[in-house]
Amino acid sequence: MANFLSRRQFTIEWGHCDPAGIVFNSRFFEFFDSGTWSLFEAALGVKPADLAAAFGIIGIPLVDASARFLAPARFGDVVELTSRVSAFRRSSFDVEHQLMVHGALAVEGRETRVWTARDAADPAVIRSRPIPAEVMQRFEAR
Amino acid sequence: MANFLSRRQFTIEWGHCDPAGIVFNSRFFEFFDSGTWSLFEAALGVKPADLAAAFGIIGIPLVDASARFLAPARFGDVVELTSRVSAFRRSSFDVEHQLMVHGALAVEGRETRVWTARDAADPAVIRSRPIPAEVMQRFEAR
Amino acid sequence: MANFLSRRQFTIEWGHCDPAGIVFNSRFFEFFDSGTWSLFEAALGVKPADLAAAFGIIGIPLVDASARFLAPARFGDVVELTSRVSAFRRSSFDVEHQLMVHGALAVEGRETRVWTARDAADPAVIRSRPIPAEVMQRFEAR
Amino acid sequence: MANFLSRRQFTIEWGHCDPAGIVFNSRFFEFFDSGTWSLFEAALGVKPADLAAAFGIIGIPLVDASARFLAPARFGDVVELTSRVSAFRRSSFDVEHQLMVHGALAVEGRETRVWTARDAADPAVIRSRPIPAEVMQRFEAR
Repeated sequence: MANFLSRRQFTIEWGHCDPAGIVFNSRFFEFFDSGTWSLFEAALGVKPADLAAAFGIIGIPLVDASARFLAPARFGDVVELTSRVSAFRRSSFDVEHQLMVHGALAVEGRETRVWTARDAADPAVIRSRPIPAEVMQRFEAR
Repeated sequence: MANFLSRRQFTIEWGHCDPAGIVFNSRFFEFFDSGTWSLFEAALGVKPADLAAAFGIIGIPLVDASARFLAPARFGDVVELTSRVSAFRRSSFDVEHQLMVHGALAVEGRETRVWTARDAADPAVIRSRPIPAEVMQRFEAR
Repeated sequence: MANFLSRRQFTIEWGHCDPAGIVFNSRFFEFFDSGTWSLFEAALGVKPADLAAAFGIIGIPLVDASARFLAPARFGDVVELTSRVSAFRRSSFDVEHQLMVHGALAVEGRETRVWTARDAADPAVIRSRPIPAEVMQRFEAR
Repeated sequence: MANFLSRRQFTIEWGHCDPAGIVFNSRFFEFFDSGTWSLFEAALGVKPADLAAAFGIIGIPLVDASARFLAPARFGDVVELTSRVSAFRRSSFDVEHQLMVHGALAVEGRETRVWTARDAADPAVIRSRPIPAEVMQRFEAR
């Protein structure tokens, strides 16, 4: 079970919002991306900018992203983003994000990412790699 | 059948791209939003900024968005975004987006939006409304 | 003298950065905008979203913005943004922003904004208004 | 004299606009960046992504940017951005941008950029380089 959570509070900015006065949809995908990096830093104890070097990968590229918008978030709202890995597979994993506004779930997001490295034989080739067991263990609830 | 398409070509900008040199994921959701507005303008002959007034609605808010990232897009790539309504329901509809890069499908997106108006009895209340038949007809293949 | 300062620390995100691996220029102007709102909230004790109503204005629109880029900021850098009003005039004012990266000044910004309200006689007309003395006093050093 | 111009028309998108219903200030700096790349492509006949390789530089980083906001631009406005080099110096240059909305000047921008390369003796060092005469000649009026 990958129950390790990261939680971040922040305030919705004027520039996040659209003419309807609510956060524009693409901003939530920025929030999710940031939530994933925070989660990995918290779980692995490695700064995001050092993640690739620490594990011999080129990164954890996104292959799938989605969001359900249940309630709006507005300028000045203090929101809380919770991110956790909901599933690890051999070389890919899912991150679930929940954005709470005034204590209620406002947006649910999901990302699928791939543990990706250069091929040992041909560094021009980029391919998925098995996620190390010690990485997955770090996401277990503590 | 809602086969009416809108197609738009544009060039990937430096500011769309991240340190991996590829378009950052949230930008695709900006492209999709823009694709939906272009599609509605092309189908209905109404400028996006006039859509709400023309149909007595407050807008077509997004309730669900997703994307599959199959191949990257890079600075300077000329891309083609195709948008179409894939399903009309009573008061909601799906828009499908395909982003082609160098002739190959690079990103697939889907938005679900709701035809939304103020309640006649209580304008403070916002609710979904049936999509007018003449709106749906405008999206049939021509 | 308007020496009241607001200071905010935050972390540079992956999505802030461009293919050169450094924060894309437009993001700094987002940071400055956010810094101005934080400064006004701290000085006036009014939430940004309530500022207009609290003072009978429609806002503090930006008429001029500039930045000097002295050193780059990168993914994961913890930066500190300091914002202060450097000059109040009758109906406009300047905000100075300094972004420190690893303890050194990396970006200097300046915004000129106007205290703006609807005309009492004709609400369709928007015009600059004298900044109230009690507003200016709140920005004096405390 | 550097009178060579590039001109680009585009439509203001929903996602460019803020709760005041007008384009958020940082977006104009994205437009300017894009205008500079378009200008260089038009003048030099080199795709932006190939500019660095074609001239043995690492890029044309921005050291100063400013904008004056004279009139707002709104969702759906068809705008025209004109960009030109207003001054070439030994190793830096200024780009002037004018954004017209409905035929009137709405935003004026200026960028200062530096012709930048790796040091021949020590590639870890990045420094300004003299702008080649043939580059400057390509920006003369034709």
